[in-house]
Amino acid sequence: MSKKNRTYIQTSGGSVKIIPLGGLEQIGLNITAFEYGNSIIVVDCGLAFPGEDMPGVDLVVPDVSYLTDNIEKVRGMFITHGHEDHIGALPYVLDTLNVPLYATRLTMAIIEDKLEEHGMNGMVKKNVVKYGDVVQAGDFRVEFIRTNHSIADSAALAIFTGAGTIVHTGDFKVDYTPISGDMIDLQRLAKLGDQGVLALLSDSTNATKPGFTPSEQRVIETFESTFSEYTGSRVLVATFASNVDRVQQIVNTAARVGRKVAIEGLSMVTVVNLAKELGYLSIPDGVLVDIDSIRDYPDEKLVILMTGSQGEAMAALSRVANGQHRKIQITKNDVVVFSSTPIPGNEKAVSRLINELYKQGATIINQMTHVSGHACQEELKLIYALTRPQYAIPVHGEFRHRKENALIAEEMRVPKENIFMLNSGDVLELSKDRGAVTGMVQHGGIMVDGLGVGDVGSIVLRDRQNLSKDGIIVIAITLEQGSGRILAGPEIISRGFVYMRESETLMDEARQIVTDAVARTTDGKYIEWTRIKNEVRDSLGSFFWRQMKRSPVILPVILEV
Amino acid sequence: MSKKNRTYIQTSGGSVKIIPLGGLEQIGLNITAFEYGNSIIVVDCGLAFPGEDMPGVDLVVPDVSYLTDNIEKVRGMFITHGHEDHIGALPYVLDTLNVPLYATRLTMAIIEDKLEEHGMNGMVKKNVVKYGDVVQAGDFRVEFIRTNHSIADSAALAIFTGAGTIVHTGDFKVDYTPISGDMIDLQRLAKLGDQGVLALLSDSTNATKPGFTPSEQRVIETFESTFSEYTGSRVLVATFASNVDRVQQIVNTAARVGRKVAIEGLSMVTVVNLAKELGYLSIPDGVLVDIDSIRDYPDEKLVILMTGSQGEAMAALSRVANGQHRKIQITKNDVVVFSSTPIPGNEKAVSRLINELYKQGATIINQMTHVSGHACQEELKLIYALTRPQYAIPVHGEFRHRKENALIAEEMRVPKENIFMLNSGDVLELSKDRGAVTGMVQHGGIMVDGLGVGDVGSIVLRDRQNLSKDGIIVIAITLEQGSGRILAGPEIISRGFVYMRESETLMDEARQIVTDAVARTTDGKYIEWTRIKNEVRDSLGSFFWRQMKRSPVILPVILEV
Repeated sequence: MSKKNRTYIQTSGGSVKIIPLGGLEQIGLNITAFEYGNSIIVVDCGLAFPGEDMPGVDLVVPDVSYLTDNIEKVRGMFITHGHEDHIGALPYVLDTLNVPLYATRLTMAIIEDKLEEHGMNGMVKKNVVKYGDVVQAGDFRVEFIRTNHSIADSAALAIFTGAGTIVHTGDFKVDYTPISGDMIDLQRLAKLGDQGVLALLSDSTNATKPGFTPSEQRVIETFESTFSEYTGSRVLVATFASNVDRVQQIVNTAARVGRKVAIEGLSMVTVVNLAKELGYLSIPDGVLVDIDSIRDYPDEKLVILMTGSQGEAMAALSRVANGQHRKIQITKNDVVVFSSTPIPGNEKAVSRLINELYKQGATIINQMTHVSGHACQEELKLIYALTRPQYAIPVHGEFRHRKENALIAEEMRVPKENIFMLNSGDVLELSKDRGAVTGMVQHGGIMVDGLGVGDVGSIVLRDRQNLSKDGIIVIAITLEQGSGRILAGPEIISRGFVYMRESETLMDEARQIVTDAVARTTDGKYIEWTRIKNEVRDSLGSFFWRQMKRSPVILPVILEV
Repeated sequence: MSKKNRTYIQTSGGSVKIIPLGGLEQIGLNITAFEYGNSIIVVDCGLAFPGEDMPGVDLVVPDVSYLTDNIEKVRGMFITHGHEDHIGALPYVLDTLNVPLYATRLTMAIIEDKLEEHGMNGMVKKNVVKYGDVVQAGDFRVEFIRTNHSIADSAALAIFTGAGTIVHTGDFKVDYTPISGDMIDLQRLAKLGDQGVLALLSDSTNATKPGFTPSEQRVIETFESTFSEYTGSRVLVATFASNVDRVQQIVNTAARVGRKVAIEGLSMVTVVNLAKELGYLSIPDGVLVDIDSIRDYPDEKLVILMTGSQGEAMAALSRVANGQHRKIQITKNDVVVFSSTPIPGNEKAVSRLINELYKQGATIINQMTHVSGHACQEELKLIYALTRPQYAIPVHGEFRHRKENALIAEEMRVPKENIFMLNSGDVLELSKDRGAVTGMVQHGGIMVDGLGVGDVGSIVLRDRQNLSKDGIIVIAITLEQGSGRILAGPEIISRGFVYMRESETLMDEARQIVTDAVARTTDGKYIEWTRIKNEVRDSLGSFFWRQMKRSPVILPVILEV
């Protein structure tokens, strides 16, 4: 399947199409199609978490209609690393698009775990690759290149086509002194640049930040000083489960000072087991203890490694802070280390969590306990300098981050007209001679709610938003067929409006208004449902607005007997 | 009403009670009662904005039951400055608690404007005070002391009682070189410290930040460099309307480089007019132009000063970014300066706003364009050093900020047992000999929704949250009295669940389930409403969960004919 053939680069001309199917407006929905000749390959397949404008939605997956419509051309999916925003939509997409999957070892192990959950593991064509491997996929050849990121086994991709070579960095940073494994393969990127790179797609997440992202090594100093400053305390560390290197550091530091380590939180337990099994995590014998046995150890001999650093309501640390955790209770002898920074949008939840922990007497440490996994401005410049691309396409990050990356590309002498700020669905066509957006395909996000994929649309969302603002008032009436006489009701029931018992006179008045509205709109013979409903809705709506300046959803239900 | 008598400080003993009625768990709800002998005074009366767990709620005001229950003792309300979180609840509280109001000139002008909106201006007993004035209010004497903050005319209070002197800083920072007015009256604070301060209540907002908050002067450099770098562009500046000094700086800089200034956004127009009138803002002739006439000036001759720096949906800048503003359209020739930092919780809204403006081609400047109005750690230490309080009570800010302020107090040699982390409603009793929390009074926040104050409770909120998650399904049936036979229906209507037309078979099945449930629970004679409703709710609930993993609110309505 793969062959080592690093020097063979030839172009036969033509143009290659680059099509982001999601991930530009909706952060997280990372999926990009590349099309050349009669072949399409896909890079990454991430999911997004819903914004506050999407109540009740569990997650958002990309619309891959373009791929399913062209399924005979699709040669494979190439995954850069194992984070949710790059692999999360696979169970939804592979269902209809079961093409071969290519990823490095840890990435594939995380994917397998996810597919297993969906009962899909057996059906997927999985191919584990190593750095340096080149995969032939139709008219494409794809090479995996080592990078550094906040999860092990991350890769950039060199995508060789007849039209030229495209480099996709994936999420990356430059860590000269990584905890485990080697540093990003700058040599290989330099060589590719030497041979000619048509286009560079690079990670914009930190493009607004000057300088360099510090090495993961930096964090170890904080843990060492914490463990030595709080020798008598129990230490709880909350971090991202998938940051195996971080976990390794914490375990190492704990072992060095003679502390045991307990693991808590489902995703933390899963990833630690996976990483141990695959040899990405090496834990000295006797260091790991079961969370059920922490009572057997004194505080000063314990480190608890857990999920929940983002304030997620159901994660271990939130349950601990709310006193809802069966095994861990906070005391004044606890030091809680937040080894993370809040993801945009989570700031308030994290603040709330910190306040709760403080109230229970814990000491909180959240300075210098985290480094980012993404390249800052100087690192981006380095990649531009090494690869010297003819075209630059900023990817990953909000518009403002990608815009900043575009300015860096310009600074690095990529001609301004060769820098493309793409929108989802844009078809960018590149050749040696010309680069232009030449079309638009179906694209975007599909909302997943429970088992329903795509059945929640904008009308349903708007209804949910309206319901949450001022609640709902249901009016039920039974009318006599023919005469339109009220036989039963009007029955008025509300949810989320005002507590009914406290508003009896208000509801009496409302009932009268409904009765009047019905009388006005039935002529004693013929029942015009729409007219009655509209009249009831309008007159009640203006009544409640006049009385209370509120606009509940008003839902008249008319039954005929 | 007021007399200059700075040296007269005597204590006759006894104890003073300090009772925060809100504002400790709920940021913004700043209101504290002080009780001595037969007198109560109140400091500040703020409102809070609802969290995301309060859908549909407009604002939160403090529960002042303790004050209305003791209305014969309440001698007055003393307001430290004109921000919403210190004055916003006045229209709601003064309604039932119409006691004399004391505030400095600009503060009172802002309050008047607010009372006018509520048609209450005439009925309130307003007393404008100057720095140095001492107000006698029952057994209290209260002195207004000059401070610096992000709004002019801010004051700290020295509260003289027989039990000793209490200093309340209000919101403050130490600005040695303020734009207008003088610096904080450190001399007066030192003198009070010299004579003996029983307790210090100090602003904790920035207590987690080391060092000093920079002077407001710092910001001017950014504006100067922006105006000189972008000589050909129109400049839009978004900032807090109430930061009169900031507005003054921007106007000065604009005037210096020959630009006109237009004002946009209701609160910006209001405050600018107020501040001009009172002489807090001095605008050179010919600089201000009407927003309707901006088309008459070339871009390079214009600065537009506007509201919306927090990404508020209805504010001027958001409407501009969404292309919904009638008078201002963004072009590539626009530079937008964010002269503010996002208030916690607004980060995502601000990000969205910046992305939108970027997409329309604007240049965004949001570095070095703002300084905080709150004291950092070294400033807090200075205030402790000057006042040398016997007791320390951190106020303003989340728990973690107040906790950090408590640690600073400890560092400044306030005995640990004399530092109080209060909860809302706590009654702290202080005397020379002893300080302790000795009771608890009614306290907390009351939700305001439309015209309703306090009628939205936890049940209504929970309903709204549930409605927004998976929507609602209404089932209406008409049953025959006596027999329980279904005469009409079941009619099934949903909102926020799935779009009905796309789910006809699902609803057919649901109708059958309801019919079966009714048949099971009516015995042909006697209609037990509760039993029928429960059965319908349970069987439909488990049906939708099985089919779709969703839990809509299910609302059966039964009519009898």
